[in-house]
Amino acid sequence: MANRMLSEAEGYELLQNYGVPTPAFQIVTGADEAAKAAAAIGYPVVMKIISPQIVHKSDAGGVIVGISGDGEAKKAFNSIVKSAKEYNPDAEITGVIVEEMARPGLELILGGKTDPAFGKVITFGMGGTLVELMKDVTLRILPIHDHEIRTMVKEINAYPLIAGYRGMKAKDEEALVEILTGIARFFEENQHVMEFDINPLRLYESGACAVDARIIVDDDYRPPGRKQRKPVPPEYFTPRSVAVVGASSDQKKMGYAVLHNLLHFPGQIYPVNNKRTEVQGLKAYPTVTAIPNPVDLAVITVPAVHVPRVLQECGEKGVPLVVVITAGFKETGPEGKILEDRMIEIARSYNIRIVGPNCLGLIVPPRGLDTTYVHQSPNPGNIAFISQSGAIINTVVDWSLTQDIGFSAVFSVGNQADLDFLDYLRFVEQDRNTEAVILYVEQLNDGREFMEVVSEVAKKKPVVAIKSGSSTKGQQAASSHTGSLSGSYEVYMEAFRRSGVIPVRALRGAFEAAELLAAPSGYVKGRRAIVITNAGGFAVLSSDYAEMYGIELIDLPEEIMNELNEFLPDYWSHGNPLDLLGDASEKRFEQVFDVLARHSDLWDIAFVISFPNLVLTSEGLARRVTDFSNKTDNPVIATLLGGESMDAGIKLLKENGIPNFDELEQTFKVVGRVVWQRCRAKSIGLP
Amino acid sequence: MANRMLSEAEGYELLQNYGVPTPAFQIVTGADEAAKAAAAIGYPVVMKIISPQIVHKSDAGGVIVGISGDGEAKKAFNSIVKSAKEYNPDAEITGVIVEEMARPGLELILGGKTDPAFGKVITFGMGGTLVELMKDVTLRILPIHDHEIRTMVKEINAYPLIAGYRGMKAKDEEALVEILTGIARFFEENQHVMEFDINPLRLYESGACAVDARIIVDDDYRPPGRKQRKPVPPEYFTPRSVAVVGASSDQKKMGYAVLHNLLHFPGQIYPVNNKRTEVQGLKAYPTVTAIPNPVDLAVITVPAVHVPRVLQECGEKGVPLVVVITAGFKETGPEGKILEDRMIEIARSYNIRIVGPNCLGLIVPPRGLDTTYVHQSPNPGNIAFISQSGAIINTVVDWSLTQDIGFSAVFSVGNQADLDFLDYLRFVEQDRNTEAVILYVEQLNDGREFMEVVSEVAKKKPVVAIKSGSSTKGQQAASSHTGSLSGSYEVYMEAFRRSGVIPVRALRGAFEAAELLAAPSGYVKGRRAIVITNAGGFAVLSSDYAEMYGIELIDLPEEIMNELNEFLPDYWSHGNPLDLLGDASEKRFEQVFDVLARHSDLWDIAFVISFPNLVLTSEGLARRVTDFSNKTDNPVIATLLGGESMDAGIKLLKENGIPNFDELEQTFKVVGRVVWQRCRAKSIGLP
Repeated sequence: MANRMLSEAEGYELLQNYGVPTPAFQIVTGADEAAKAAAAIGYPVVMKIISPQIVHKSDAGGVIVGISGDGEAKKAFNSIVKSAKEYNPDAEITGVIVEEMARPGLELILGGKTDPAFGKVITFGMGGTLVELMKDVTLRILPIHDHEIRTMVKEINAYPLIAGYRGMKAKDEEALVEILTGIARFFEENQHVMEFDINPLRLYESGACAVDARIIVDDDYRPPGRKQRKPVPPEYFTPRSVAVVGASSDQKKMGYAVLHNLLHFPGQIYPVNNKRTEVQGLKAYPTVTAIPNPVDLAVITVPAVHVPRVLQECGEKGVPLVVVITAGFKETGPEGKILEDRMIEIARSYNIRIVGPNCLGLIVPPRGLDTTYVHQSPNPGNIAFISQSGAIINTVVDWSLTQDIGFSAVFSVGNQADLDFLDYLRFVEQDRNTEAVILYVEQLNDGREFMEVVSEVAKKKPVVAIKSGSSTKGQQAASSHTGSLSGSYEVYMEAFRRSGVIPVRALRGAFEAAELLAAPSGYVKGRRAIVITNAGGFAVLSSDYAEMYGIELIDLPEEIMNELNEFLPDYWSHGNPLDLLGDASEKRFEQVFDVLARHSDLWDIAFVISFPNLVLTSEGLARRVTDFSNKTDNPVIATLLGGESMDAGIKLLKENGIPNFDELEQTFKVVGRVVWQRCRAKSIGLP
Repeated sequence: MANRMLSEAEGYELLQNYGVPTPAFQIVTGADEAAKAAAAIGYPVVMKIISPQIVHKSDAGGVIVGISGDGEAKKAFNSIVKSAKEYNPDAEITGVIVEEMARPGLELILGGKTDPAFGKVITFGMGGTLVELMKDVTLRILPIHDHEIRTMVKEINAYPLIAGYRGMKAKDEEALVEILTGIARFFEENQHVMEFDINPLRLYESGACAVDARIIVDDDYRPPGRKQRKPVPPEYFTPRSVAVVGASSDQKKMGYAVLHNLLHFPGQIYPVNNKRTEVQGLKAYPTVTAIPNPVDLAVITVPAVHVPRVLQECGEKGVPLVVVITAGFKETGPEGKILEDRMIEIARSYNIRIVGPNCLGLIVPPRGLDTTYVHQSPNPGNIAFISQSGAIINTVVDWSLTQDIGFSAVFSVGNQADLDFLDYLRFVEQDRNTEAVILYVEQLNDGREFMEVVSEVAKKKPVVAIKSGSSTKGQQAASSHTGSLSGSYEVYMEAFRRSGVIPVRALRGAFEAAELLAAPSGYVKGRRAIVITNAGGFAVLSSDYAEMYGIELIDLPEEIMNELNEFLPDYWSHGNPLDLLGDASEKRFEQVFDVLARHSDLWDIAFVISFPNLVLTSEGLARRVTDFSNKTDNPVIATLLGGESMDAGIKLLKENGIPNFDELEQTFKVVGRVVWQRCRAKSIGLP
């Protein structure tokens, strides 16, 4: 590894150029020199070991603070050198740094790291010895706007310690913002800096001081160049004719299932099989080139070793898009990688675009196109699903059939040897059937470009994403504080936030969020929520879940309260949640809805929660909820709980485009996610 | 309110008696006296205002630290008194306390409060100015064992700061344990102390010092006495004959629905209606006393005002148990309370026991008994459900019918005017149909007794509980740190933990946990988990969810790894989760299961996760999972994901008592909850 750590002195000098205040210091190599330097700087001083091999200086006994005289300074020098040698006999000791002892202050940490997907990222949080225990940090992908730096400062939990807390005076927030701006610029301008920590930065009522700096550089580092990208015409995904290479009549083969799912395709289908003249009742051709008519799309299911040859045929035939379902490429190791490179080379030479390899292919239900081997093709609908896991597509498609969920398109990205997330995003961006997009992401190669593209898509259509790999075990170990405090998962979350993508943790939640956002009034404008229910138990649980998931149940405005008191029975809850009591009729709900609709400016979201009882029918309530939704521009979200007795109401809500959940915690969890993103997105100009 | 705050001096003296070290101090009332006292104590000193009206002394400018000479001491006295007067002109200032300035140390908070349900509770956590920002606290209900005090110390996040961290020396943990033991005894022995804060306690490498103490007492306080309790014979809940007072043929009336649900009851049913001789095809009686045969149970649905009269009739008739469904009692205010008291008085005089009022009644499906007005009676099964919300029973019962869930008993506790949670718990404890218990709790009146009873039940049958009311809004505001740091919800969670009750947040999770625990190998013995799957995507997500919910995915033991390498394809995951790859056959799963079963001592839980594909059928896999489960005593938990194509496998698992989940996040969430409780419960002697 070409990484090396700058000495503290080098670090201080570099940081000073970007306006980061550091202590006065001198480097010394002997005890007498140490005392002279200390006297020149002014007592008390700190002394620290300088050794490229010693990262955690304190652990090595390499730091002595509060040195207040010449004798002490000499002793300290000798003690530090001795301890360091004992700690690591092989460590190269280049000297000792004698530093002005910065006075105590609020200890913060500022850092930076180079993320494999998103590049340079800066981190800010509580510092000092508590840093690893508290993990109170926030991060931003560079470049960063000034107002984002201000937000960053305010979003750590310990911000009150900066702003002034319990009689303590406020710290110099402006100085902190300037320093953060400086280090952002420092990190951007010095491409060879891979990571750094200022831990702690001491912040005072006036000014600040960086008391320690670790900067790791790689002089050979070159930021990765951008992939050459040729747009894929949308027509590529709506072929008129499809060839299946490896088509089979043997039910155990992949080539059987793929052709089977294509039998419903309204265009031309050409099985290719060099041993048979007929497959599953269709005329088969020995080669792609033997097909007499044009082929818009070829699907390859033959073993990996045959793929280059087949691709050559496709090239000769002039097939523009090929889906390579076959596995056994890059994902299996170096040999597979060679095969994959060879495949791409052939594709380039013929101007063929590739989906996969090692994928499930694509499904475009509104066109009746399904190149995958899923158990049963999904129904047409308005959700586009782009997934980095084929198993997850299998699962989701199977499940969707029981849930009345339909798709505009399903893409299995596979190894992304040619087409990748960005190409599929561009397709669904312009696709008129798509009203919401769900991504399942394991890893991105080109995070910056992803952010650019997905934020354009998110301005037009809601994008929900599951990012897997949040576990510490799954994340790379890192040598620095910054690295260990902000794993790669957190960087993805920040990228999603910046791009207007709504992150969720589970598949079910992803679909519920997508459906919610695809609903006519799905766009949540704020977090002021009102809950209307006829059950005390669900009123209490609603408050619990709302708090857990960041939905603000507002205090009921007086206007609303007064109007409700006029007709509600005496012992209604007189607050939010509005518990209309177990004997609440459809009429009572309607009256309350009318009051709320008239005051739509005072709230942002209404949750209607009900359960099976004798007083109202689910259908009757659903009709009132629909009327309510029609009378307000704010989203009205239902949760009709129970079993079959609620089916009629749920159906009616669905027909009228009113989101409904069947579990109360899930309601608040999903809406909380959406609110989180929407409220933040507004600040960066997204809808 | 009879609450008053002790002065700091009184507090110090009281605490010293229990071995809590405090600074030397003197109380002074003039500037000269202050200087004299300070000199006697020894500089530097701290001075603080003494005023019953000033709780947050720093906010009032009532604290000056680091006073190091006579002149300063005089100035400090005057300044403190002046600031305090400005802060609150009405505050009564009884003097200034001059204290030895305790040297800096690790700042901790120790506190206590009196919980309305569970009585005296002590709190411990990180102190100082960070206390409210970090909320790093833990609590225990008193009395408390010594080993629990040691656990308490170790379970805060900041414990490494006590144990020694990053080259810092360890603090005096023994002194801390002694002090905590002391304050527990102090709080127990001084019943009139309602709440207290020691914030901060400074902990040193040797010893400690309580630097501030706020103690609030109520001299009139008497701990609530225990309710007089007469056990309810279990036969009361298995009546041979039931009378329905208010039975009706009008479908809109509650008395219709209740009688309707009883029509399937195999015993005698006696409608009581003073206007009709026949109701829903059954002979009706004008009064309870007019019924010619014995009545084991009466259900009352008539308006509240008539209830006392009907109860009188029941008494004359000798009915032992009466379910009062009618609402309009204590829950409506003082008048309703009077009516409820009158009802109870009558019941006592006739030795009648009461379920409710303001409830849904009870359901005992194995006996065909349903006194409620739920939409449709639930199926018999092995889960007992005791709920403080009728709406939640309506919802859960309706939902259970679509989920293949059955009940041994369902109790709606209502106002608990007579029978309460404890009586129903005692019934399900001995009920042979009940294999797991679910509670929905809003509030308990007798927390201590609940803990005693429920921990006995939990030793025999798993008990899962949802406690609502966790939101800050829903919880009482409190004046002290301790009060605001540990709301009532946290006290319930601690009570559950101590009693072996498994807390969950949502209804669905409650039933999943109950089913899991009622399964033959449901009792989880530890947290060492292994995941076996054929999907890379689900392998990654499993790692994520496992970490989120506290399930430890162990490093694969070498023995297992070596055996697996012998037959698995080269590019299997070589780790945990065991990704057996998309082409994994039933045979491959079987081979892996056999290896794991032979090494059952090396793990505690196995998760098998699969999805619909071409290589295996859900039934075939379910059969292998069943064989696996038969070969090991450890729980094997399946998650067959997808839609209808998994139904056959799920059915087979159910028949064989193997827990299965239909959503991956939910698997780890629910099992995580169970593991959390089981691993802790073991330490207190529960199964």
